[in-house]
Amino acid sequence: TIASRIGIVLPDSQYDSPLKGKHVVVTAGPTREKIDGVRFISNYSSGKMGFALAEAAKERGAKVTLITGPVHLQTPEGVERLDVENACEMYAEAKRIYHSCSVFIAAAAVADYRPDTVYDGKLKKQNVEMQLRMVRNPDILAEFGAVKQSGQLAVGFALETDDGVENARKKLREKNLDLIACNTFDRKTSGFEVDTNVLTLIDRNLEETALPLMRKTEAARQLLDYIERLMDSEQ
Amino acid sequence: TIASRIGIVLPDSQYDSPLKGKHVVVTAGPTREKIDGVRFISNYSSGKMGFALAEAAKERGAKVTLITGPVHLQTPEGVERLDVENACEMYAEAKRIYHSCSVFIAAAAVADYRPDTVYDGKLKKQNVEMQLRMVRNPDILAEFGAVKQSGQLAVGFALETDDGVENARKKLREKNLDLIACNTFDRKTSGFEVDTNVLTLIDRNLEETALPLMRKTEAARQLLDYIERLMDSEQ
Repeated sequence: TIASRIGIVLPDSQYDSPLKGKHVVVTAGPTREKIDGVRFISNYSSGKMGFALAEAAKERGAKVTLITGPVHLQTPEGVERLDVENACEMYAEAKRIYHSCSVFIAAAAVADYRPDTVYDGKLKKQNVEMQLRMVRNPDILAEFGAVKQSGQLAVGFALETDDGVENARKKLREKNLDLIACNTFDRKTSGFEVDTNVLTLIDRNLEETALPLMRKTEAARQLLDYIERLMDSEQ
Repeated sequence: TIASRIGIVLPDSQYDSPLKGKHVVVTAGPTREKIDGVRFISNYSSGKMGFALAEAAKERGAKVTLITGPVHLQTPEGVERLDVENACEMYAEAKRIYHSCSVFIAAAAVADYRPDTVYDGKLKKQNVEMQLRMVRNPDILAEFGAVKQSGQLAVGFALETDDGVENARKKLREKNLDLIACNTFDRKTSGFEVDTNVLTLIDRNLEETALPLMRKTEAARQLLDYIERLMDSEQ
């Protein structure tokens, strides 16, 4: 380029990001667990936090794969997007890229349970009451935590209603995570469907950082700053 | 106006619609039945058919109230929109206007069941299996059918996987409807989330009219044509 020929160093915002060139996998959105051909169980996740993380990682020069449940959001430019519907599909996609990723960020609100039996057509209504038998879904992040190699980072979210930080610390340990972002359950300022979030970050050394109320786009940047510091400390 | 003073009759597309000035209530979209503060049961209804009906009724000069579950659609101009989340809320809104409406069109995919108990916060995952105890929701259209006065029309939809027309006829009778539109369950051309529909109309005299595959906007017009004929036949 002209710039290089005349010896000018152009500013490059990604020049010192340890994420540059690394493969970052982000899961986002809710999952839908079918009861029958028309009905499903889902949750209020909008996917905003995951999409913000994918975009911010891309901005830092990472190769980003975004595995998302059904959401109404545009794919950030340059991000590879894999659409899935339910937890088992998300698990299958994630599993295929566990080995290649440097950072796995589980921002999706994966359903813990799915109906035991899925009916092909439409279940007819019959009785005044009905029992729905549910079975546990795979824990995508815990499995990554269990198989990850040195140099791979596992990052999770914990949406908690009470004893938030204590429960988040427990998840961090049990799932062998490097960082967990604890979300207090408050529909107005934090968590699902809103544009802002209040996160407390807890890292593998149990260091706690309480972030103030901020937009999810900004929270995504702060989370990636933290991930970069963890990556640097491993060098 | 100038036109009336100089004796010109302006064309008016609504001049002969018996819907003109009448109150038409349309329900649309899915309902969401909460399991806890983050999880819910819902269905794949997009709301497109109901919104198309509301718009078409408005075009014919009706006063239109659209009671809708959570959808991603724009409100047709001039239509009064009431947003609800679950079946009980939709029932409450509908009940308040049962008496004033001339035509009640139930295009919403109302959940037949809701969880017996709704947890305030977030249910913790515990066992490998879970039982979800469900109870029946009110049948909004059946109740309107039961209380409607002479001159009020009740119009429903039936999404059926097999024995479609036979089941639709049964619903028509049991719910005291004037017209039912039977939807064959076929995710590609008909029913939820797609822009087209294949409907069979069955009226209170058990007359059957099979409509070909068409856009939902066109299906809405055909359904309103049929409703107009039923209104005319009551004069």
